[in-house]
Amino acid sequence: MPDFTDSLLPKQPTGLEALAHERRHSNLAIDELATHLLGVDGFLARQSKVLSVLQSEPLFSKSHQQNLSRPDRYKLGLARGKLLRRLADKHGWISEEHEMAEYLVDDVSPYMLHMGMFVTTIREQASDAQRAHWLPLIEGWKIIGAYAQTELGHGSDVRGLELEARYDLETREFVLRSPTLTASKWWNGTLGRTANHAIVVAQLLLPDSQGGYVSYGPHPFIVQVRDMKTHLPFDGVVIGDIGPKYGYATMDNAYMLFNNFRIPHSALLSRYSSVDPDTGRYTKPKESAVVYGTLTFMRSKIIQHARLVLARAVTVAVRYTAVRRQFSDRDGPSNGPELPVLDYPTVQIRILPLLATAFALHYTALAMQRIYISTRKEIEAGNFDSLAYMHSMSSGLKSLCTTLAADGIETCRRALGGHGFGGGSGLIQLNSDYLSKPTVEGDNWMITQQTAAYLIKKMTSAVKGMKGTAVDEIDVQYGTYLSQIHGASQTSYNILEQDQDLVRAFQHRATALAYNVYEARVVNKKPWTSLMIELHKLSKAQSQYILVTKFHDALASNTDLSEGTRNILWNVFRLFASYTLEADRYELVFTCGAASRAQLDALPARVNELMARIRPHAVSLVDAWKIPDYLLDSALGRYDGRVYEDLFNRAHRFNPLNKLTVNPNYWEDEIIKGGEDIKAIRAKL
Amino acid sequence: MPDFTDSLLPKQPTGLEALAHERRHSNLAIDELATHLLGVDGFLARQSKVLSVLQSEPLFSKSHQQNLSRPDRYKLGLARGKLLRRLADKHGWISEEHEMAEYLVDDVSPYMLHMGMFVTTIREQASDAQRAHWLPLIEGWKIIGAYAQTELGHGSDVRGLELEARYDLETREFVLRSPTLTASKWWNGTLGRTANHAIVVAQLLLPDSQGGYVSYGPHPFIVQVRDMKTHLPFDGVVIGDIGPKYGYATMDNAYMLFNNFRIPHSALLSRYSSVDPDTGRYTKPKESAVVYGTLTFMRSKIIQHARLVLARAVTVAVRYTAVRRQFSDRDGPSNGPELPVLDYPTVQIRILPLLATAFALHYTALAMQRIYISTRKEIEAGNFDSLAYMHSMSSGLKSLCTTLAADGIETCRRALGGHGFGGGSGLIQLNSDYLSKPTVEGDNWMITQQTAAYLIKKMTSAVKGMKGTAVDEIDVQYGTYLSQIHGASQTSYNILEQDQDLVRAFQHRATALAYNVYEARVVNKKPWTSLMIELHKLSKAQSQYILVTKFHDALASNTDLSEGTRNILWNVFRLFASYTLEADRYELVFTCGAASRAQLDALPARVNELMARIRPHAVSLVDAWKIPDYLLDSALGRYDGRVYEDLFNRAHRFNPLNKLTVNPNYWEDEIIKGGEDIKAIRAKL
Repeated sequence: MPDFTDSLLPKQPTGLEALAHERRHSNLAIDELATHLLGVDGFLARQSKVLSVLQSEPLFSKSHQQNLSRPDRYKLGLARGKLLRRLADKHGWISEEHEMAEYLVDDVSPYMLHMGMFVTTIREQASDAQRAHWLPLIEGWKIIGAYAQTELGHGSDVRGLELEARYDLETREFVLRSPTLTASKWWNGTLGRTANHAIVVAQLLLPDSQGGYVSYGPHPFIVQVRDMKTHLPFDGVVIGDIGPKYGYATMDNAYMLFNNFRIPHSALLSRYSSVDPDTGRYTKPKESAVVYGTLTFMRSKIIQHARLVLARAVTVAVRYTAVRRQFSDRDGPSNGPELPVLDYPTVQIRILPLLATAFALHYTALAMQRIYISTRKEIEAGNFDSLAYMHSMSSGLKSLCTTLAADGIETCRRALGGHGFGGGSGLIQLNSDYLSKPTVEGDNWMITQQTAAYLIKKMTSAVKGMKGTAVDEIDVQYGTYLSQIHGASQTSYNILEQDQDLVRAFQHRATALAYNVYEARVVNKKPWTSLMIELHKLSKAQSQYILVTKFHDALASNTDLSEGTRNILWNVFRLFASYTLEADRYELVFTCGAASRAQLDALPARVNELMARIRPHAVSLVDAWKIPDYLLDSALGRYDGRVYEDLFNRAHRFNPLNKLTVNPNYWEDEIIKGGEDIKAIRAKL
Repeated sequence: MPDFTDSLLPKQPTGLEALAHERRHSNLAIDELATHLLGVDGFLARQSKVLSVLQSEPLFSKSHQQNLSRPDRYKLGLARGKLLRRLADKHGWISEEHEMAEYLVDDVSPYMLHMGMFVTTIREQASDAQRAHWLPLIEGWKIIGAYAQTELGHGSDVRGLELEARYDLETREFVLRSPTLTASKWWNGTLGRTANHAIVVAQLLLPDSQGGYVSYGPHPFIVQVRDMKTHLPFDGVVIGDIGPKYGYATMDNAYMLFNNFRIPHSALLSRYSSVDPDTGRYTKPKESAVVYGTLTFMRSKIIQHARLVLARAVTVAVRYTAVRRQFSDRDGPSNGPELPVLDYPTVQIRILPLLATAFALHYTALAMQRIYISTRKEIEAGNFDSLAYMHSMSSGLKSLCTTLAADGIETCRRALGGHGFGGGSGLIQLNSDYLSKPTVEGDNWMITQQTAAYLIKKMTSAVKGMKGTAVDEIDVQYGTYLSQIHGASQTSYNILEQDQDLVRAFQHRATALAYNVYEARVVNKKPWTSLMIELHKLSKAQSQYILVTKFHDALASNTDLSEGTRNILWNVFRLFASYTLEADRYELVFTCGAASRAQLDALPARVNELMARIRPHAVSLVDAWKIPDYLLDSALGRYDGRVYEDLFNRAHRFNPLNKLTVNPNYWEDEIIKGGEDIKAIRAKL
C-alpha cells in the first residue's frame, strides 16, 4: 500500500555514499586479496556458480523465515535439503559445490550428518566389504544416515557411554540395550525425524570364558532404525526429536533408546577392530587413537568454517559502523558533522582486532588442512606417528578458534548498537547457530587438557635431553627453549618493531608455560585436577602461538600479493599479535619474562596506532572476503550501504505481524480485531 | 503412548540424590540468607502469593511456548498481559504485585512500556493539569501508551533526533513531521501493534522574530496515534512492528513516521519547560539535566533486575554442574567414581565468581535504589545538586552491571556443556531477551563517557584544592588520594588477608586512573576521541570500586545474619574482589601501584582457595535466591535435581515435531507423510 514514506530518503550522507567514499579512499587491491584468500581452491568460482542457481529458486528466499515456528523451520529445512540434492543432480554439482550451496542457504540442513559424519565414518572405519555395500546407498541418498554417539548423560567422556552392544554367539547378533534413561542417545543430528540409518556408538560387550561379559569400550555400529516404507522406528527402538534449542531450528537432533534390539554381526564397523563371528574373539586396532580420526577431520572443518563465520560478522560490523554516524567530535565545533562510529577508538577496539583474527584463523585453517591431509595419508599407509600430534593440536585450536569466532560474533553484534539486536543485523541466526560450536566435537574447556597432556609429555622428553629425535615442531620448539632461552633473565625481543620478535614472544610464552606446568605436574607431582586452569592456559598459549606463526609465515613467504596490499596485511598481522599480547601482559612480563616492561607499557598505544592505520582500509579488507549479500542476509552489512532503506523495507513491507490489527482492551477477550481471542491462543499451548 | 522408556531410571547417583547430598553438607542457613536478601521489602512474600495465582492459570504454562512462531508469541504475550491485568483487578494486586507477576511469567509484556516509561514520564514530566487528565486513563488502561524516542538513525545521540515538532502560532498546534526515512521512530516498545498513545520525543521548533524557526532541542509530547475504535493509525501517521529480533518475541517494537500530523498545544509535557501558547515563547527548565530523570530511574531498575537475572543463570549452572558427573579423578583409580563437574576448577572458575557477582550486584542495587529515592525527593523539592552525581554513577553502573549479567548468562550457559544449548537449559530466552540490555537506555560503551567526564571534572576540582566543599563521595575519594596516596612509591595493602585493603586497592586504582585521565585531558590537552578507551576503563574501574565497596560495607555493618552464614558471605566477597582484581594485575602493579607484585603473584592461588571454600555451599547459596522452578523453566536447574527425567519428558512427551512422520526421499515432494509437501512450505515464505 503506497504511503508518504515511499518518497522519503535517509539523512545525508547516505550509506550508499558513505561506503563508496570508503572504497575510494583505500589503495587495497580487493580482488587481488580475494583471490589470494579464496581463489586458490576454486572457492570464489564455486560461490558465484552456485549462488546464481540458488537465487532463482523462491524456496531459498530468506525474507520471511525468521517468522516461522520451529516445526515449520524444520520442514522448510527438509524441503530445501531435498531441492538442493535435486539441483546437485541437475547441475552435476561435485560435493564441494553441494557443500557451497548448503553454506550459502545457511540452514543447518536436516541432511547434514548424512553428508558429514555418517559418510565420513563409513569411509574411515568400515571394512572394504562394508564400504562396498553402504557407500553406493549413502551417496545416492537411498538411505539417510546419522551419527549417534553422545548420550543424555555423557558427552565429552566417551568412555562413560552407557549403551550396550552385547554379542550373542548363538545368533551371531549384537543386542543393543539402553540400561537407563541417561543411556538414551541425545543430540544426534539428522536422526530425530529424518534418518533411517545411524552409526550407533555403543560399549562392545563380548562373552568371556566364565560365561560373563567383558567390555571392550565404545565401538561404532551401523544400524537401520526406521522402516524404509513407513519411516516409523522399528519395534524396540524409541526415537524422537529433542525439541527447540538455542539455534539449529532446522535440525532434528535426536534422542534414541534401544530395548534389546538385535543387529547382525556385520553391523560392527570393522576396518580397525573386529570380532570373530564364531568365537566372539576381539581383534584390537593397531593404534587405539585411530577412532579419533573422524573427530579430527570434523575439527579441521570447524576451524575452516570459523574464519568464514567471523569474516561474515566483521563484514557486517565494519560496513555498518562506517555508515552509521553518531555524535560530532567533542573537540570540534558544536555543530560539527557527525562522525562514522568506526572512527571512534571504542568501536575500533571491538571490531578491528576481530577483523585481524579472521585472517589469523584463515592461515591456520590452511595449515591445519595441509596437516590433516598428510596425516590421513600416513594413516592409510599404516603410519600413526603424526596422529597424536595432530589430535592434540586440533583440540587446542578447535577450542581457541571457535571461542574467538563465537565471542567475536557477539562482540560485533553489540558494536552495532540497537540495530544489532534487530532481525536486520544478519547476526542473530548466525550467533544462535554458532553458539553450538564451543561445545560440540569436544567442549572448549575440556579438550584443552588433551593438548596440555601432550605438551607435558613432550616437555618431559625434551628435559630428558632426547636430542636428535625431534619428530614434530614441538620437539624443536622445546629443544630451542631449553638450550638457549630458559633461565635467561630478560629477553631482548623488540615486539614493537620486529615482526619476527612478536612470533618469538608468543613462542617463548607458550614454552615457558609448558615448562612451568611440566615442573608442577612431573617434578612436583601436583594433582591433575588442581592444575586444570593452568592446563587450559597452556593450551591457549600454544594455540595462540600457532595462529601468530601461521599468519606471520604466510605473509613472510608470500609472492602473489602486491606490495601495497601486503603492507596493509602486515599491519593486520601486527594488530592481531599486539592485541592478543596486551591481554596477557602480566603473565608475559612476570611469569614468562617473554617481553620487557617498557615495551608492554607501550603496547596499548601501539594497538591504537595500528588500528588508525588499518581504519581507512577496513571496508576494503572485509570486501575481500567476498561474502555475498544473499549469505549475509543483513540490512546493516549489505554491500551497497543502503542500510536504512533495507531496515525500513523489512519492517514496513515484509513483516506479517503488521497485517494484524489488535484489540488492546484488557476487559475484552478479542486479541485480533475480528479474529483470534484468548481461547484460540490457549489452544496452541 | 506407553513404551519401555517409562520404566527407565537415570544412572546412579541420580540428580535427586546429588542435590540432597549437597544440601546436607552445607551449614549455610538458606532461609535466613533468603530473608536477608529478599525479605526486607516483602519480595519473597509477594513471590509466593503471586506464584500460586499464576500456576492455576493454563495460559501461563511455559511447556510449549518455545515452539510458537514469532507472531503467535506476540499474541500469546498480549493475551497474557490482559489476563494479568484482570488478575490484578480480581486480587487487588498493588503495582509491585503486578510487576512480580510479569517477572514470573517472564514474557517481555506488550504492555511493558505502558506500565513503565509511559506512565513514569507522565508522572515526572507532565504538569499538574496534564497529570490530572492523563493518569486516571493510564492507570485504568483506558488508553495504552508507549515511549517513542529512539529513531532509525539515532539512538544514543538524543540531540541528533530528526523528528520535528513545529509550533503553529495561528492554530496553536504542533506539527509533527518526519523529514527523512532515518527520522522514523524505531524500537519503541508497545507501540508497534498495541498502544494507541505515545510519548513522542521531537525537536521543538519555535518561530523566531525573522519568520523562521529555531530548535530548542528534543522535548516530549503526548500524542494519540491510533483511533480508539478501529485501532488503526490516524491519517498522517504510519506505524508498524519492526519485525523479528534477537529476543523480545512478545514485544511489538515500533517504527513510526508523521506526515505533518497536528497535535494540540497541550501535548507538550510541561512540568519543567513550556511554550507560551500565544507568543510561542519558550520557558526553559531550571536544570537542563532534569529530562534525564526518567532515564536514571530506568537504569536503577535495570541494575536491580540484573542481580536477579544473574542469580537465575547461576542457579541453573550450580545445580546442574553439581548433578552432572563426568570423568573420574585422573590421579585416582582408573575405575574411580565420576565426579560432579562442579568439582573441577575449570568449571568453578566460570561459575563461582558469577555467583559472587550476583551478591555484589545485589548490594549495589540496594544502594542505587536508596540514592535514587533521596535524589528524587530533592528534585521534587527543587534541589538538583545530586542529579549530576546520580546520573554519572548510574551510567557507569548500568554499563558494568548489565555487561556482567549478559556475559554471565552466556558463561553459565556454556559451562552446562551440550545441554546448555538445549531448550531445557532455561537460559535461551533469558539470554536472548537479556542481550538487549547492554544497548538499551544508553549503549554500554558510549555512556561510560558520561561517567568519565564527571570524574574528570571532579578530579580537576580536587586538584585545584577546593577543600571543605565535598558534596559527594567522589570529592572525599579524590581528596584522600591527592593528600595521602598520590606519588607514594609502593602501597602496603594486604589484599590477601585484609578485606578493607581489597576495597582500598580498588579505590586506589580507580582514583589513580582518574588522575591519569585528568592529566592527559586537562593538563596535556589530549583529544577526547583519542582517550575514549581510557575513559571506558576509568568508568569501569570506578564502578568496580562501587560494587566492592557496597558489598564490603553491607557485610561489615550486617547484624541480621548468623556468624556461619556471614563467614561464607565474606568468602564470597573475597572471591568477587580477588577475581576482579586478577584480570587487571598488570594495570594494578604498573599503572597504578595499587598492589604489590608478590601479592598479585599469589592471587590466582587465592582465587582457587576461595573457590574451594565456597564450593560446598554453592547449592545452598543459590537456593537462597529462591528462584522458583516456574520462573527458571529449566530441566537443568530445577530444585529437586531431576534433570534427566525432565529433559526426557520435554523431548518425548511435549515436542510437537514428534507427532509428524516425515518422508526423507529427495526425489519425492512429500515432506510430511500423508500431509504437507514442498509447495505447502513455499507458501509460507
